Amino acid sequence: MTAALSPRAERILAGEIRAAARLMRDLDDRMPGAIDDLKALYPHTGRGYIIGITGNPGAGKSTLVDALISAYRHAGLTVGVVAVDPSSPFSGGAILGDRIRMQRHALDDGVFVRSLATRGHLGGLSRSTFDVVCVLDAMGYDRILVETVGVGQDEIDVMRTAYTSVVVTVPGLGDDIQAIKAGLLEIADVLVVNKSDRDGADRTVRDLMHMLDLRGAGGGRYHREVEIIKTVAAKGLREGSGVPELVAAVDAHRAEWAYDPEGAVSRRRARAHLGELVKSLLGDRVQQALAARGGLDDVAAEIAARRLDPYTAAESIAADI
Amino acid sequence: MTAALSPRAERILAGEIRAAARLMRDLDDRMPGAIDDLKALYPHTGRGYIIGITGNPGAGKSTLVDALISAYRHAGLTVGVVAVDPSSPFSGGAILGDRIRMQRHALDDGVFVRSLATRGHLGGLSRSTFDVVCVLDAMGYDRILVETVGVGQDEIDVMRTAYTSVVVTVPGLGDDIQAIKAGLLEIADVLVVNKSDRDGADRTVRDLMHMLDLRGAGGGRYHREVEIIKTVAAKGLREGSGVPELVAAVDAHRAEWAYDPEGAVSRRRARAHLGELVKSLLGDRVQQALAARGGLDDVAAEIAARRLDPYTAAESIAADI
Repeated sequence: MTAALSPRAERILAGEIRAAARLMRDLDDRMPGAIDDLKALYPHTGRGYIIGITGNPGAGKSTLVDALISAYRHAGLTVGVVAVDPSSPFSGGAILGDRIRMQRHALDDGVFVRSLATRGHLGGLSRSTFDVVCVLDAMGYDRILVETVGVGQDEIDVMRTAYTSVVVTVPGLGDDIQAIKAGLLEIADVLVVNKSDRDGADRTVRDLMHMLDLRGAGGGRYHREVEIIKTVAAKGLREGSGVPELVAAVDAHRAEWAYDPEGAVSRRRARAHLGELVKSLLGDRVQQALAARGGLDDVAAEIAARRLDPYTAAESIAADI
Repeated sequence: MTAALSPRAERILAGEIRAAARLMRDLDDRMPGAIDDLKALYPHTGRGYIIGITGNPGAGKSTLVDALISAYRHAGLTVGVVAVDPSSPFSGGAILGDRIRMQRHALDDGVFVRSLATRGHLGGLSRSTFDVVCVLDAMGYDRILVETVGVGQDEIDVMRTAYTSVVVTVPGLGDDIQAIKAGLLEIADVLVVNKSDRDGADRTVRDLMHMLDLRGAGGGRYHREVEIIKTVAAKGLREGSGVPELVAAVDAHRAEWAYDPEGAVSRRRARAHLGELVKSLLGDRVQQALAARGGLDDVAAEIAARRLDPYTAAESIAADI
């Protein structure tokens, strides 16, 4: 597997931002040649360390990401950021907010930020995130931060692009057991209680510890300690209370579990990447099979009228794939 | 499309709970014949009215569902309930909570409750929800309530099983614009501000109205008024403040948009159902293609070691489907 490098791929490997941005746009537009560049870049990936950050809306994830960027830059590391909002069908919105918050780093060559909204990512947001992370990794960024908004399955899927998943919550969301969903807890490598100067921070930590105990008992993937870090991230403060501890916890997870590119964490990530790509390719072919039947709308009208049952229709379409 | 009815399908059409529960279990276990029964039952569906209920964790959805059940029963209607928790990888948990809350109706023959967790639904939770709703519809329940926990893409997918989607929020979640996610607002036919005796209820209503205005401007699916209902649902109180108004709002949406089984809402629902089924069938075949390559773990190990790129691997697998 040593695909020839196109001139654009060469420029991306050299860290050229314009070439990378162009490839990302071509991937969105499904331009021919874009996937070939990814194939050629892939063997050069695996050096960047990918960290996912997700958690409750309003938990201050963007501010925390901002603090992490400052901390990594201070340590001499370059940082790529992918800001993902699966629930937004609109351009702008929260994504725009992230951009504004990160503008502080706009003049820093060592930081590159890319936003992904739902719109325009037919192949799936998780698949697009893998693609963007692949490009950032090939460009040579030392740390790649994948930030998502929200707490649903989409966010969990996007987190599968990362080696280390940081799940952020805040005190006082009420309804303890619901404040952080079980599915999110399941993927957490490091837990953060942000805004921990608020009332109830210690109680939130206790609740999380209790839920982690339950997770262990329930047979979660990892039987190990998950660190819980209390932070008070403030805009522009790399010294934000708890941020150095968060960096250390991520490094500890990296050293313990995720450092080996052929280890369990990397293989789990590869499984997810492959799955997203297969799903995307088959989706294209389903569209073709539907087109041969007059399109999805015609088939759906027959089903709605109970002239055709969806189970028979689906079997027929699948048989044509 | 008039499939012969098996004895079991006959019993389900007669409303027999034991036959229905057995079919649902067989569907989970992918027993041969189960899909044939669904095919035979499908032409007999379309009479039950399917109402989805979703919204922020802690918004009191289960209590609201409880109040709706009481209201519909009081009106002489039978009710089927599907309680779905996409984020729970565990059995029990929130699902168990729902069951306990609904036990009040356990001795009422006119109410049937079925819980779905992630575990055991390889074909996808949304697909399983469609199947269960199909059975409840064929059994003759007048109203079918689909309740989901959480606010992610999974919940939005599950809501596509319904003709009318009710999205529930509560005052005081903070971070107004994040309190109810755009994707959820996009699918709302009726909005509920529950626990509206809390401080800030009027502000939440104003925020929602503002977001609905934005949605209209952004080109949402429907250009029409979405009713916002304030409720104070209390356990066991069908007279819970606002509940009659909620029932009326759902009825209004039913009359205006969703009554016609061949109309736009039914066709949209059929599109979603078909999509879930195709996805499930193709998933099975992907598993077979992977098995022919030594299994997903072997392929993933090659990708993780950068001896194989995931793009080439995915193309090869898709070519074998």
